Amino acid sequence: MNYKASHILILNNISRFIDLTELEEQKYLSLLTEISVKRKSFLMQAGDITSFEYFITKGCLKVYTLDDDGAPHISMFAVEDYWTGDMASFMTKEPTPYFIKATEDSELFGISRANYELLFQEIPKFERFYRMLYQKSLINYIKRSNHGISLTAEERYIKFKTKYPNIVNRITQKDLAGYIGITPEFMSKIITKVNRR
Amino acid sequence: MNYKASHILILNNISRFIDLTELEEQKYLSLLTEISVKRKSFLMQAGDITSFEYFITKGCLKVYTLDDDGAPHISMFAVEDYWTGDMASFMTKEPTPYFIKATEDSELFGISRANYELLFQEIPKFERFYRMLYQKSLINYIKRSNHGISLTAEERYIKFKTKYPNIVNRITQKDLAGYIGITPEFMSKIITKVNRR
Repeated sequence: MNYKASHILILNNISRFIDLTELEEQKYLSLLTEISVKRKSFLMQAGDITSFEYFITKGCLKVYTLDDDGAPHISMFAVEDYWTGDMASFMTKEPTPYFIKATEDSELFGISRANYELLFQEIPKFERFYRMLYQKSLINYIKRSNHGISLTAEERYIKFKTKYPNIVNRITQKDLAGYIGITPEFMSKIITKVNRR
Repeated sequence: MNYKASHILILNNISRFIDLTELEEQKYLSLLTEISVKRKSFLMQAGDITSFEYFITKGCLKVYTLDDDGAPHISMFAVEDYWTGDMASFMTKEPTPYFIKATEDSELFGISRANYELLFQEIPKFERFYRMLYQKSLINYIKRSNHGISLTAEERYIKFKTKYPNIVNRITQKDLAGYIGITPEFMSKIITKVNRR
């Protein structure tokens, strides 16, 4: 079977946790929807009830909320080979508080709520895949909430730079500041200081 | 088969997501360790590498970190029929930043790292149970991180009181303040104000 590059990327991602037969691979791919988002366009906006969970095959998107003063709080940057979305809105059908905006032209696969449920009936080993994916997400949430408490802005920047070398150079200093949780001016000072070492 | 009350509680919890045969129930129970924690004793302390995930059958425990000034930040209260622990330390074998301290004499089941892995081999349908449990935890994490941004202390208190009526009367005002993220004095004022309505 000849798969295109985006199919190979998502199948490789799945194969980290479970082995699929060729028939299961084809069944799985048939449950996905291809989605394109132009740079500066929104995949999701606060108030939406999201019907998809997403896997990124190309590009970069930022996930953020706006506080009462309209300042963005960026919770993640999602690039190729990442999963993104708002699991809470996806599962509860409540409006999302998140914006997801493309910072580069992006290509994604979406799985709809109906197909997500169907997936577990059709290919039960996906229970294991999602168990392990969610386990990893939970670990990241737990660790990130601890770092918020104990690390300085400079330490958070160094940690981000070290953990995500493939992301740090693709985003603006302003977006980086929105992720670290400081002003763009202070972000600029920290970057200069760290890179001078 | 005659089960004791604690066994029935955990099996009922499991049965929300999956159906076990009697043989599977017995196999599952055989993988658990019974643990007792006296009031004011620690189940876990910062620096420990935790070897268990826990299910509470009786009592109440608080999960918290200490900030640089030694002030507690309580992330959850866990009572009977709740799961608790530090998934990050459990999976990565890194030291936990958490303290888990009993606020009442407590009884728990623990599942060890080895038995947790064994469980999926022996009874694969537990993949589904944990997929759904983690999905729910993720939704709670996502929602809680949003509330931190958008709700006032008073709103957080009302939300907690409404969502956990069975917990709010079992904990001290000081612990409640450590959870809401305010001083005990301010907590006391809010409680008086809300209850006067």
